[in-house]
Amino acid sequence: MKLQLAIDLLNKEEAAKLAQQVEEYVDVVEIGTPIVINEGLGAVELMSQSVKKVQVLADLKIMDAAGYEVSQAIKYGADIVTILGVAEDASIKAAIEEAHKSGKELLVDMIAVQDLEKRAKELDELGADYIAVHTGYDLQAEGVSPLESLRTVKSVIKNSKLAVAGGIKPETIQSVVDEGPDLVIVGGGIANAEDPVEAAKTCRNIVDGKQDVTI
Amino acid sequence: MKLQLAIDLLNKEEAAKLAQQVEEYVDVVEIGTPIVINEGLGAVELMSQSVKKVQVLADLKIMDAAGYEVSQAIKYGADIVTILGVAEDASIKAAIEEAHKSGKELLVDMIAVQDLEKRAKELDELGADYIAVHTGYDLQAEGVSPLESLRTVKSVIKNSKLAVAGGIKPETIQSVVDEGPDLVIVGGGIANAEDPVEAAKTCRNIVDGKQDVTI
Repeated sequence: MKLQLAIDLLNKEEAAKLAQQVEEYVDVVEIGTPIVINEGLGAVELMSQSVKKVQVLADLKIMDAAGYEVSQAIKYGADIVTILGVAEDASIKAAIEEAHKSGKELLVDMIAVQDLEKRAKELDELGADYIAVHTGYDLQAEGVSPLESLRTVKSVIKNSKLAVAGGIKPETIQSVVDEGPDLVIVGGGIANAEDPVEAAKTCRNIVDGKQDVTI
Repeated sequence: MKLQLAIDLLNKEEAAKLAQQVEEYVDVVEIGTPIVINEGLGAVELMSQSVKKVQVLADLKIMDAAGYEVSQAIKYGADIVTILGVAEDASIKAAIEEAHKSGKELLVDMIAVQDLEKRAKELDELGADYIAVHTGYDLQAEGVSPLESLRTVKSVIKNSKLAVAGGIKPETIQSVVDEGPDLVIVGGGIANAEDPVEAAKTCRNIVDGKQDVTI
């Protein structure tokens, strides 16, 4: 099981610095959509130059011009690029093709997908590397959690890896890990913690199934 | 009827220069999603500082953290901000509220919305300023045009203004204008024309219903 740190609300220099601090404990660091919108792909470039042992994910949430956008993200150093599950199949196919051409991966973000079971099956068949169940900020504010959606998607996919994101914290990650996803994405739970390194370490231990964990 | 120039594939300096050249003929200039992803909101800022008589649209295609993203776009000079029609209602509401707080407008992009009639009705009731029928690049490549969708949306909205985008060119804009939208969005049809100023002028004349037009 892999652990990803999603960084959304720092500038690109702060994001790179935080990633270096927790690099030992995570497998993937994400330049979140708000940073991409604020600063562009230069933030992905700086991140990819700043970390050594982890993959870099560019959370572009692509909706159109998918082949072009994936190629741009990879040019700037992304190892994994995101597209929206609500995008047209033509866009999903172009994105997968472009990512695989460079030996990179595509993560499909299921945010706002209405029929999760149907769409997850389709994306699995289209060849998505990851399918990510994601409760966004705007629904987290309404008290929604991704656990039930995680089970729904897990029950139908055969080839894609399963990822999960949405308000996961050191205090709640165990319940997510118990569902057995391939990739657990933690954002503010690490980035906004009083001690981000300690929070990352706690998440790592739980993801690795270590028992001697005190929170 | 308003005319918008969408700029997708230039860098921010080239985009600002092109906007200045055609400012006389358009009502809105758009910093397209590919430019936002490549260069961030600084591209919107430069555009808003470079033009005088036109509105600036930031094509963020927001999917989450909608209030925050709208406020950022406005901070950098956007007059109109885009959100995806496939986004959750909670996101749409937050975006509309944030835009109206500053006297700015929200355009909802209907790209990849499966039930156009149902969603357009809902967005109209939620208070979207514009509802934009949009055939994206990836479906244009499959020969899809936005004309039929335009009629569908027009038949159900009561308060929102109607916008249309997707492969519109000086040679084809008349058929779009004939449907009576409130905002016609032209991208490559002007930006990639041999003479962008002449193409913008042609589009302006057709949008204004002038008869003495030769293409």
